[in-house]
Amino acid sequence: MKPARSFASDNNAGMHAEVFEAIAAANRGHTVGYGDDPFTRSAIRRFEQHFGSGISVFPVFNGTAANVLSLAALARSFQAVICGTEAHLYEDECGAPEKFVGSKLVPVPTSNGKLTVEAVRRACHGAGDQHHVQPRVISITQATEVGTVYKPNEIQVLARFAHDRGMFLHMDGARIANAAASLGLSLRQATRDLGVDVLSFGGTKNGAMGAEAVIFFDPKLSPDFLYLRKQGMQLASKMRFISAQLDALLTDGLWLRSARHANRMAKLLEKEIRRIPQVKIAYKVEANGVFAKIPRSAIAKLRKRYFFYDWDREQSMVRWMCSFDTTEEDVKRFAQFVAETVGR
Amino acid sequence: MKPARSFASDNNAGMHAEVFEAIAAANRGHTVGYGDDPFTRSAIRRFEQHFGSGISVFPVFNGTAANVLSLAALARSFQAVICGTEAHLYEDECGAPEKFVGSKLVPVPTSNGKLTVEAVRRACHGAGDQHHVQPRVISITQATEVGTVYKPNEIQVLARFAHDRGMFLHMDGARIANAAASLGLSLRQATRDLGVDVLSFGGTKNGAMGAEAVIFFDPKLSPDFLYLRKQGMQLASKMRFISAQLDALLTDGLWLRSARHANRMAKLLEKEIRRIPQVKIAYKVEANGVFAKIPRSAIAKLRKRYFFYDWDREQSMVRWMCSFDTTEEDVKRFAQFVAETVGR
Amino acid sequence: MKPARSFASDNNAGMHAEVFEAIAAANRGHTVGYGDDPFTRSAIRRFEQHFGSGISVFPVFNGTAANVLSLAALARSFQAVICGTEAHLYEDECGAPEKFVGSKLVPVPTSNGKLTVEAVRRACHGAGDQHHVQPRVISITQATEVGTVYKPNEIQVLARFAHDRGMFLHMDGARIANAAASLGLSLRQATRDLGVDVLSFGGTKNGAMGAEAVIFFDPKLSPDFLYLRKQGMQLASKMRFISAQLDALLTDGLWLRSARHANRMAKLLEKEIRRIPQVKIAYKVEANGVFAKIPRSAIAKLRKRYFFYDWDREQSMVRWMCSFDTTEEDVKRFAQFVAETVGR
Amino acid sequence: MKPARSFASDNNAGMHAEVFEAIAAANRGHTVGYGDDPFTRSAIRRFEQHFGSGISVFPVFNGTAANVLSLAALARSFQAVICGTEAHLYEDECGAPEKFVGSKLVPVPTSNGKLTVEAVRRACHGAGDQHHVQPRVISITQATEVGTVYKPNEIQVLARFAHDRGMFLHMDGARIANAAASLGLSLRQATRDLGVDVLSFGGTKNGAMGAEAVIFFDPKLSPDFLYLRKQGMQLASKMRFISAQLDALLTDGLWLRSARHANRMAKLLEKEIRRIPQVKIAYKVEANGVFAKIPRSAIAKLRKRYFFYDWDREQSMVRWMCSFDTTEEDVKRFAQFVAETVGR
Repeated sequence: MKPARSFASDNNAGMHAEVFEAIAAANRGHTVGYGDDPFTRSAIRRFEQHFGSGISVFPVFNGTAANVLSLAALARSFQAVICGTEAHLYEDECGAPEKFVGSKLVPVPTSNGKLTVEAVRRACHGAGDQHHVQPRVISITQATEVGTVYKPNEIQVLARFAHDRGMFLHMDGARIANAAASLGLSLRQATRDLGVDVLSFGGTKNGAMGAEAVIFFDPKLSPDFLYLRKQGMQLASKMRFISAQLDALLTDGLWLRSARHANRMAKLLEKEIRRIPQVKIAYKVEANGVFAKIPRSAIAKLRKRYFFYDWDREQSMVRWMCSFDTTEEDVKRFAQFVAETVGR
Repeated sequence: MKPARSFASDNNAGMHAEVFEAIAAANRGHTVGYGDDPFTRSAIRRFEQHFGSGISVFPVFNGTAANVLSLAALARSFQAVICGTEAHLYEDECGAPEKFVGSKLVPVPTSNGKLTVEAVRRACHGAGDQHHVQPRVISITQATEVGTVYKPNEIQVLARFAHDRGMFLHMDGARIANAAASLGLSLRQATRDLGVDVLSFGGTKNGAMGAEAVIFFDPKLSPDFLYLRKQGMQLASKMRFISAQLDALLTDGLWLRSARHANRMAKLLEKEIRRIPQVKIAYKVEANGVFAKIPRSAIAKLRKRYFFYDWDREQSMVRWMCSFDTTEEDVKRFAQFVAETVGR
Repeated sequence: MKPARSFASDNNAGMHAEVFEAIAAANRGHTVGYGDDPFTRSAIRRFEQHFGSGISVFPVFNGTAANVLSLAALARSFQAVICGTEAHLYEDECGAPEKFVGSKLVPVPTSNGKLTVEAVRRACHGAGDQHHVQPRVISITQATEVGTVYKPNEIQVLARFAHDRGMFLHMDGARIANAAASLGLSLRQATRDLGVDVLSFGGTKNGAMGAEAVIFFDPKLSPDFLYLRKQGMQLASKMRFISAQLDALLTDGLWLRSARHANRMAKLLEKEIRRIPQVKIAYKVEANGVFAKIPRSAIAKLRKRYFFYDWDREQSMVRWMCSFDTTEEDVKRFAQFVAETVGR
Repeated sequence: MKPARSFASDNNAGMHAEVFEAIAAANRGHTVGYGDDPFTRSAIRRFEQHFGSGISVFPVFNGTAANVLSLAALARSFQAVICGTEAHLYEDECGAPEKFVGSKLVPVPTSNGKLTVEAVRRACHGAGDQHHVQPRVISITQATEVGTVYKPNEIQVLARFAHDRGMFLHMDGARIANAAASLGLSLRQATRDLGVDVLSFGGTKNGAMGAEAVIFFDPKLSPDFLYLRKQGMQLASKMRFISAQLDALLTDGLWLRSARHANRMAKLLEKEIRRIPQVKIAYKVEANGVFAKIPRSAIAKLRKRYFFYDWDREQSMVRWMCSFDTTEEDVKRFAQFVAETVGR
C-alpha cells in the first residue's frame, strides 16, 4: 500500500488545519470582491506586523505569478534578470517570465545553489550598449532550489551590488519560511533588513491551499501593480479566501511552526539517510529538502512505493522534500525503505 | 446595519456548502501536484459526463485566465478576436488579452447584449490583407453581460458563420450555468451541441471558491494547452483543491440547483422592482442579473446600505446580481428599501 | 498604356532626386554603424534647427515602427492609447501596437478625421479602476487619414486635456509635412509648440526612399529609447543611409517644397473633379489627398488604367493621393479619364 | 589622418556600386507599395534561381528582424530556441527574440563557434514536461560569429537531429555569402540542400545598403508570414528599393564576387598578422573575419587610428572584419600599423 505522505514535494501536502479553519471562517455572508474586503485588510495588517510598515502587499494565486509579476514590476522588456541556472523561474516556469515580461533571463552558475557577486558581475556586462539587454534585477531563491540557505551577509552583498548599479534584488521566497526558520531570523530580518527589494512570499509550500503574495518593501516600486496583477490574470474575485490563508499562516506563528517542523524532519531524514553507505547527501541540509545521490538501479524500485522527482538524472541525484505534515514515523519508514532497497 | 448579502455581484457570495465539503474531503494526505491527482481525474470524468467524451478540460484559477488562455490557444498575435463592446474580456480584464495573446480585440456593438451575425460580418473585413489583423475568433458571453441569454439558434448561426470562414466560436461561460438553467438545456446542449469550440466554464460565480476551466470540444485545438496554461501562470500546484470544487459543482446537479435558484431570485427581484414606478428594468431578466435605471439621486442613498455597481453612469443604470445564496427575504427587503429610497 | 504615375498612394512614388543625391553622397568610405556617424549627427542637427534644441531624435525604418515605438516609450502594457477608429495604427498595422506594446488601443469616432476632446473624454473612463486599462496616450494623425488637417487650437486643447490627466499626446506625422505646409506653419509650430509630446516624423511619403524618425520633445520621456528601438528591430546598421535621407528632406526646405507641391496638386485635382457632377468630394481637401464618392460601376473601369484604393466600400468612396512628383498634366489627364469614365 | 576604411565591421562599409545602380534604376515612376511590384517579383525570381523553386521569400529591413521573424514563424512562446552562447540573436539583439516571440533562448556552449549535436542534445531536455519550455528550433550562424564556417556535414547532422524530434533548423545567414564562398558551394548547396528549414539571408554585410530576406524552404512553414512581417514592423512601403538591392546581389554573381573578395582579404590579413609574434590568431580564418589576441596595452593605441570592437575583453581578444571594398593596401597598411604598435 502506498503511504499517505510522500517526499516528492512540499506541495504534495494538503493544507494545514489552521488554514482550513481560516477558509471556513471566511465563508460567511457577502463581501466585496477583488481585495477590498476585511479578510484581505487583515492579512495586510499581519504582513505589516511581520515585515514592518511602509510595504505594499498583493496576494496572488501561485508562485509562478508571484515571481513573474515581481519581475514585470521591476524590469522593462529590454532589461535583464540575472538568476541562477537552476532557478525555478529560469528552469521550471515554461518560459513565463520571457513571455510576460519580455525580458531575457541571464543564467548564472551557482555555488551550493547560491549566486555570488563574482558570478553576477560577470553576467552584468553590456550596460549602456544598445545592442545588449540592460541588467536590472538579481533574483535569488531562498531557501535555494537545492535545500541550502543564503546566509544574511551573502544576501547583503548581493543587495549592495545591485543597488550600487541601480539594480534591484528580488527574492523568490517560495520557501522563505523555511529559510527564516533555519536562520533563526524573523521574516523581516531575513528579507527587508538584508536589502531585498521585492519578495515573492510563499504560502502554498508551507501549508496553504494556494496563496502567495508579492511584497514591495518600497511602495514607490509598485504604484501600478494593481494593474499588472489584473493584466497578469492574477486578481482573485473572491480574494478573501486567498487572504484568509495568508492571514492564518501569519497568525500565532503558524508559518514558523510549520517551517521549523519541516526543516526538522529534513534533518532527521538526512541523519537516517547518512546511515546508508550507498547513498550520498549532495548538499547541506539547511531547509526542508534532502538531495541525495542514490544507485541508479534503486530509483525505479523506490518509486514503486514513493513517488519523487529526479533532480539530476546524469548524476543519479534525487530530491526529497519534507512538509508541515511529515511525521517522524514517515521519515523513518521511508529511510528504512531506502536502506532496504539500495541494500538489496 | 448592513445586510449579510448584497446584490453587488454573484462573486460577492462565498462558496456553497457542498463545495466547501469537497475541499475538506480533498484535504487528506499527499497527492501529486499539477493535475495528476485523483481529484482532477474525477473532475474531468464529471465534465465528460456533462459535455460528452472527446473533450479536453483544463482547470484554471479564474475567469480572466480562462478567457485569455482560450484565445491564446485559438489565435496567433496577428489574428483578431471579435467580441461585444461590453464583453468582459474587452472592457474588464485590464488589457490581459492584448498583453498575453498580442491580438487585437475588435469591439462590435451588441443588441440586448448579444452579437449578431450582421454586426460580426461588418467587423470581419480585411481578410487576406497583410495590413489588417485576420479575423479568427468570435467570442460571446453566455449569459450575457446584461443578464440576457442567447437563444440556441442565435449561437448556432454565429458558429456557422465562424466555421464557414475557418474561424472559431469561443464562449465566455462565466455564467453558463445560469444560461443553461434559463434555457432548460443541459450543459452540453447549451454549448457543444450549438457549435461552440471552446468554453470558459465558470464555477466561481456559481458557488465555487475560485475555480474555472477551459474546455476544448475538439482536443485537436489544444495539443499544447498544458504549456500555455503553465506559461500563463495558471497551473495550480495543489490542483486537487481547484478540481474538487469543479467536481462538486457537477455532482448531484449542484450547478443547476444553484443557477436555477439565482435565476429565480432575479425574476423575483424584477417582479418586486417593477412595482416601483420610478425604476425601469433595462433588459430582459433571463439569468441572475437585473439591470435598472433608477433616479440618480437615489443611488448614493441606496449604497449606504447596499453596495452595488453602476452599469452605465450616463444613463443612471445600475446592476443587481443574485447568487446561489440570495434568499427571498433578501430580495424583498432590498426591493422594499429601493422603493422607500426612490419614493422619498 | 498605364501612366507613369498613379494616385494610389504617396508611397507609390519613388524618391526625390535630392534624397537620392544625399544617399549617393553618403556612400563614401567606412563609417561606424548604428548611428554614431557624421550623417546621423548632421540629420539630428537639422532636426534641432527645425524643432528647436532639447529634443531626442531616433531614425527608424518605417512609419509602423515610428508609431509603435513611440507608444512603447509612453505606455506600459496596462495603459491605453486613445485613437481614432480609422487611425492607421488602429486599422492598418496588423495589430503591431497590441503585439509590441501589449496595450489596448481604444478606438474613438472622429469628426472629419479628427479626434475631439468630447469624444476622447468619453473614452477615458476607468481611471483608477484595476479592472480597466488606464488611459495614457492620445494619438492623433496629422494630416488626418481623410486628408483634413487639425487646426492648431484643435491640437492644443487635446494636448491640454492629456497633460491635465498625466497623459501624453502623440502625433502620427506620416504626413506632418503636408499638414505644416497646409497650415503655413513651421514644423516646430505645427507640433512641439502645440503641446505634442512625441512625433512620428514621416519622410517616406514625402519623397524619401524609406526614412522616418521618432522625436521626443522632452528627452526625459526617452532615456531608454535606444534599447526599445533595438529590441523593436529598428536599429539600422548602416544608419547613415537613413539619416542622409532625413537630412536631405530638412535641407533647403525640401520637405516644404515637396509637401506644398503635393498639396497643390490635390487642390487642383479637387477642382477638376468637382466639375464632374456624378462624383462627390467627401472631405475637405486640406493636404495631399482627395476622397471622393463615385458611381460604383466606374471603379473597376477606372482601375483598369489607374490603380487606387477603396476607402469605404459601402459608401463607394475612394482615395486619391498626390505626391511630390505628381504633375499638373497627371492630374488633368486623370480627371479627364474619371470624367469620361463616369460619364459613359 | 583616419583611413577611409576600417576593419571594425563589414557593416561599416557603404554599398556596392552595382547595388547603388540598382536602386537608381528602381527610382522610376510609380509602383505599387508593400511588395506587389516588379522589382520584388524580379528579386524573388532571382532567389528561386539560386535556391530552387518552391520557396517563400520575404524581404525585411535588417538582420535582427530576419532572425526574430524567422523564429516567430517557427516557434510559439512556450517553445524554446537552442542557440550558441555567442549567437548574435542571443547576445546582440537586446532581447528582441524574447520580446517578440516570447520564447526562451537556450544558450549552448559552442566549439569554434559551432553548435554540436552533443551540446544541443543536452539542452533539449524537458520535452513533454509542462513546466519546461519545449525545444523547437536550433539556430546556427553561418559563417559563425567567430569567423569559422560549419562544414556541410556538421549542418546535416544538426538538421537530422532537429527533424528527428519535430524541430526545425534555422540559419542566421548574415554572412551566408561568405560561408558559401568559403565552402565553394552554391547558395542552395550551402543551405537548403543541407536541411536548413529557414534562412535569414544577409545582404547588408555583403554590400547592400540595408536588405535582408527570410527564406522558407518549405512554404508550408510560412502561410501567415505576411502578417507576421507586418505586425513585426518590417513591411517596407517602398519595398522596391529593398528588393532591388537583393536583386543586384543575386545578379552576375555579385554576392559571390563580394564575399570571395572579403574572404580573401581576411586571409591576407591573417597572413600579415601571423608575422607579428605578439599577436595570436584565435580562430581559424574561414570567412571574412580575423579574431586576434593582442597585448592589452596596444588596443587603445590602435583605436586612435582604426576603430574596432573588443570580442572578449578578459582575453584581450579583438575582432577585425573585411568587406567587399577592403583593398590589399588597406590590409597591409593596417597590419603594418598593428606590427608597429604592438612592437613599441
